[in-house]
Amino acid sequence: MAVDVLQAKIRKLKNPTMVCICPTIRELPLHIKEDARHKYGQTLRAAADAYRTFSFGILDALKETVPAVSIVSGAFSALGADGVAAMQEVLSYAQSLGYYVLLDLMRADLGTTAQDQADACFGAIQVGEQSFTPYPCDGVLMSGFLGSDAVKPFAEYCRTGKNVFIISRSSNKSAREVQDLLSGDRVVYQVMADLAMRWSTGLFGANGYSEIGIAVGATNRQVLETLRRKYDRLFFLVPGYGAQGAGAKDAQFAFDRMGHGAAILAGRSILYAYQKQDGDGQDYQQAALAAAEKMKKQILSYITVM
Amino acid sequence: MAVDVLQAKIRKLKNPTMVCICPTIRELPLHIKEDARHKYGQTLRAAADAYRTFSFGILDALKETVPAVSIVSGAFSALGADGVAAMQEVLSYAQSLGYYVLLDLMRADLGTTAQDQADACFGAIQVGEQSFTPYPCDGVLMSGFLGSDAVKPFAEYCRTGKNVFIISRSSNKSAREVQDLLSGDRVVYQVMADLAMRWSTGLFGANGYSEIGIAVGATNRQVLETLRRKYDRLFFLVPGYGAQGAGAKDAQFAFDRMGHGAAILAGRSILYAYQKQDGDGQDYQQAALAAAEKMKKQILSYITVM
Repeated sequence: MAVDVLQAKIRKLKNPTMVCICPTIRELPLHIKEDARHKYGQTLRAAADAYRTFSFGILDALKETVPAVSIVSGAFSALGADGVAAMQEVLSYAQSLGYYVLLDLMRADLGTTAQDQADACFGAIQVGEQSFTPYPCDGVLMSGFLGSDAVKPFAEYCRTGKNVFIISRSSNKSAREVQDLLSGDRVVYQVMADLAMRWSTGLFGANGYSEIGIAVGATNRQVLETLRRKYDRLFFLVPGYGAQGAGAKDAQFAFDRMGHGAAILAGRSILYAYQKQDGDGQDYQQAALAAAEKMKKQILSYITVM
Repeated sequence: MAVDVLQAKIRKLKNPTMVCICPTIRELPLHIKEDARHKYGQTLRAAADAYRTFSFGILDALKETVPAVSIVSGAFSALGADGVAAMQEVLSYAQSLGYYVLLDLMRADLGTTAQDQADACFGAIQVGEQSFTPYPCDGVLMSGFLGSDAVKPFAEYCRTGKNVFIISRSSNKSAREVQDLLSGDRVVYQVMADLAMRWSTGLFGANGYSEIGIAVGATNRQVLETLRRKYDRLFFLVPGYGAQGAGAKDAQFAFDRMGHGAAILAGRSILYAYQKQDGDGQDYQQAALAAAEKMKKQILSYITVM
């Protein structure tokens, strides 16, 4: 089961974290942008090349420390087709290095489009007798707002070794506008978790967790604690750490007593750690590694991964 | 204001409809697939070329009948970078033919990714001194589940002639799992409409409608009627017509007394109208045009666009 694979990778490195690869051009080290500019001028292709180089560099730097990465599709697709081509390379490269690879779709579709998206990530797009998987990955993070119709095409693949994560409670401030509404005796974020449980029938792995998990921000500690208590068979992806303000003290509540069942996500605080130093960004890989090791240490000061 | 432009295009053609360009490979006419295969073999590039050819053909066929089109990003991006490159061409071509062009994102992002996505659609991605707009369009359809943080980067552009549409009540069966939950005296789909109203401050056009609209399915007529009564300043995009089962009798309730304030969406029932005939698909353009004219006629048998 894919969730067992994720947990095994976490246990092996004793590091329950996942790094979000969400590049934006302004934040990239200058030398990477200059190199891309020499190759391709001031073009989207140059920007995409810089995203690719930077992402490969981060993946190389963290491969012995961080077990899992989340590739943020919106970041890459903002550059158009060139960005998407770079993302496809980053997905393959991350898998080749042994990471558990999540594709952060942040979307939901319906009908044939939902099926085609699921096939593109988890199965194959057929072109005549040939088949292609444009977005190879182990799991996706998607929206559950459209309900079962949107999730089912992806969830079908959970029987063949893939994970689906649904946004339950996001880490941003305005999450409460919709996700914190009370309906009957349930808050909307609980409804999302209940749906994840409903879709989980027959999908529980050896470690007790379902192939279908949820994303729950660490920025609201009380929500995180409540959900962990109530949904002890759902694996949690936990954004909000670092740049968004949550710390290990908050994030600890995502885990079960064995230190299992969750991965804490961090993006900017790892990717752009180099900006906190005096240098010119040549050392972005060492800075990212140091930040990832510090994050791991902070989390492990509150929990033990057995 | 962009919503006035949309309304003007609708009035000019006396046709309050929008056609969704959401290709999927299995449904395309054989001759288009064969042509693409001769050019590029059995590859994703060939599939993307077929999507482009087919979409251009639909756009050519409908340009004097249909005022607006919705380009479904998930359909194109399922083919990877080649599909996205085709979508970029389709967006530009649709604009060049005079359509109001909606980009159906079906997603929501946060932070720098949300900003980059908004810039990619409505503004510009800066690469050195050069700027690029990978996804030129007049409006986007997006998810509001993450709240203001996700919508604001797009909504900012509503001051400069762009529209944002938020999913309020989708047309699929499982929409009720989340969107129909009652919270206090409001259903979640009303909460989404209330958010759209809140974000609309200062964004009302000459015709009284806001630059920020909502998507409301025609499949639940009662919901549509209730929302139209309560939110008389929000423009409605109305999916669910045709292949999904709703008819003009249902869709009529989306309009105000002037026949304004809404566009009825149809996708498969127009794109693949050729399949209902005996031929080999060579006539897909005439079939699409006939289906679009029939749809227009059916809607205009219930309402008048003044």
